[in-house]
Amino acid sequence: MPSLQVQLGARSYPIQIGSGILHDAQRFLPHLSAGAIAILSDDLVAPLYLPALRETLAHAQRPLVEIIVPHGEGSKSFARVEEVCGQMLAAGLGRDSTLCALGGGVIGDLGGFVAAIYQRGIPFLQIPTTLLAMVDSSVGGKTGINHPLGKNMIGAFYQPRAVIADVDTLDSLPEREFRSGLAEVIKYGLINDPGFFAWLEDHLDAILAEDSDALARIIHDSCADKAEVVARDELEGGLRAILNYGHTFGHAIEAATGYGTYLHGEAVAIGMVMAADLSRRLDLLRESEQARIFRLIQAAGLPTHAPRLPAEEYLRFMRIDKKAAGGQIRFILLRSIGESIITGDVPEAAVRQTLNAFME
Amino acid sequence: MPSLQVQLGARSYPIQIGSGILHDAQRFLPHLSAGAIAILSDDLVAPLYLPALRETLAHAQRPLVEIIVPHGEGSKSFARVEEVCGQMLAAGLGRDSTLCALGGGVIGDLGGFVAAIYQRGIPFLQIPTTLLAMVDSSVGGKTGINHPLGKNMIGAFYQPRAVIADVDTLDSLPEREFRSGLAEVIKYGLINDPGFFAWLEDHLDAILAEDSDALARIIHDSCADKAEVVARDELEGGLRAILNYGHTFGHAIEAATGYGTYLHGEAVAIGMVMAADLSRRLDLLRESEQARIFRLIQAAGLPTHAPRLPAEEYLRFMRIDKKAAGGQIRFILLRSIGESIITGDVPEAAVRQTLNAFME
Repeated sequence: MPSLQVQLGARSYPIQIGSGILHDAQRFLPHLSAGAIAILSDDLVAPLYLPALRETLAHAQRPLVEIIVPHGEGSKSFARVEEVCGQMLAAGLGRDSTLCALGGGVIGDLGGFVAAIYQRGIPFLQIPTTLLAMVDSSVGGKTGINHPLGKNMIGAFYQPRAVIADVDTLDSLPEREFRSGLAEVIKYGLINDPGFFAWLEDHLDAILAEDSDALARIIHDSCADKAEVVARDELEGGLRAILNYGHTFGHAIEAATGYGTYLHGEAVAIGMVMAADLSRRLDLLRESEQARIFRLIQAAGLPTHAPRLPAEEYLRFMRIDKKAAGGQIRFILLRSIGESIITGDVPEAAVRQTLNAFME
Repeated sequence: MPSLQVQLGARSYPIQIGSGILHDAQRFLPHLSAGAIAILSDDLVAPLYLPALRETLAHAQRPLVEIIVPHGEGSKSFARVEEVCGQMLAAGLGRDSTLCALGGGVIGDLGGFVAAIYQRGIPFLQIPTTLLAMVDSSVGGKTGINHPLGKNMIGAFYQPRAVIADVDTLDSLPEREFRSGLAEVIKYGLINDPGFFAWLEDHLDAILAEDSDALARIIHDSCADKAEVVARDELEGGLRAILNYGHTFGHAIEAATGYGTYLHGEAVAIGMVMAADLSRRLDLLRESEQARIFRLIQAAGLPTHAPRLPAEEYLRFMRIDKKAAGGQIRFILLRSIGESIITGDVPEAAVRQTLNAFME
């Protein structure tokens, strides 16, 4: 079973990936602190996987507290953080307890943030149950909640003790969410791993059939690629921006269409198609590589075109995107599959041409 | 003017101490981030010192947002954190902004915590205006708020970019609070700085007269002593516990008498007298040194005896104090002035004798 180590000095941690490892106590016990254990999950995931995790953690023979919050983005709130901390305090959890976050991105973000601030920080284990959480939130230490005035505006950089990704939990993931997660997987190939991109082209059928080995491979390589970028830029100084490939267009699509129309990965997929097109228009990327990118995203069952709106609508959201610096819209562009650059120097006319070319 | 550097690797920062430095822009400008500035203060401190700070920071020629919260422990709440973050978001403060916390311990704790979690962390400057905040919160990176189920249960270890302690702001501090801060100053001499303790004995008159140079010296030496302990134990593994000298008894006195009867430093003063007595009873500390400790605390105008209650009352609170590990009450005791040890191995009979000896 593949496992990898995220190298962050004293805060290094392993990501363990495999089929059925939710039942393997040896994956968990070495990473627990000396005290009690809290499991945080949501009302959709808990009925599916909490019984197995509870049984596995019983081998630790420590007090166990289960905290279930409603599923969905609404749980990333101050009120929910206070309530979860309250349940932990009421159960007498001390600084030597461990928090296990079992669920998708929301649970990872909320659980990581609670762990970061509970009694000034306790260890936490991340047990992601969606493809997006496995390949995105597993690496980078970003935790946080929303403020009524902005998404992900409150949070902390806080690393888990370990990530334990059991690919079997993806069985219950809706197909559309699985494909949305694939968009981020493809992104890692595009920004700095041409070999991985080629492997994805060759093994797309096995991936879409959710073959365990293929899943373990894409999760491993995605995390390794992201870890390499993050290790060089833990606190998001500069380089890490390449992880936003496809996101400048993608965020504008999400915003212009109203959040919820597209899943995040779907909007990113369209954004990646657009960013490849823009790269080609600026004579950075060859047409043949642009075509390969388009084909893989399309074959993965992801959308490639945004709804037809005046280009100005999208541009407006791109300008207020937080990545806009000094009025210039920042783009991550490709020189080739596997080689990305960050630039603010893009003629708006080219951006309009790209937008118009990829609206249906 | 004395200044010192807290050595914490990449998170090292200076503590600048002096008379009138609130007006000296050069103390502030090098520590500001590139973006806007937020000043957090409370409704008691803001009218006194915010105008001066505003004028000083105007030299930075950056947008300035002022956020005033009600004074007192009640502001260390989730609701207040959300509100302060909301004011910062509404003002458009980005990750490149700097938070300046102007006030006593509550403002430092709240401001540091907001800085730690706003957009996953922004730089902050601490501008303490009480003796306790200058000698205690300036070093250690402890930030946080209260939960309805426990004090300081939510927080983060987060270091400031700089601490700027203008001793002139102590002019407005009520005498009783000033003396309460002195208790912590004396503590530093007791736990690891015999030379400083002797200096305090020799210069108590100048200190109580609030002579600027004497104040700068006690703040400098207290911070240097605390920094030395913290540098060796940033995340509170073990050694740092000696900073709790006097606090095992002190917390029990605060709890048994109802919080608010004694100021924290007053309860710690009685606790230090008791811990010295207990050290002498256990043949660790010489009687002559115990007498010096008693005399200095008394001469500083601090209380030396707790209210008469059944000893069991105090013991009960000592047992549930968070420093109790495995049922044993942990004590910080003295071998001599300037040499402290941490022990759980203390006969309860001796503790009772000490309690009975120092109740009025």
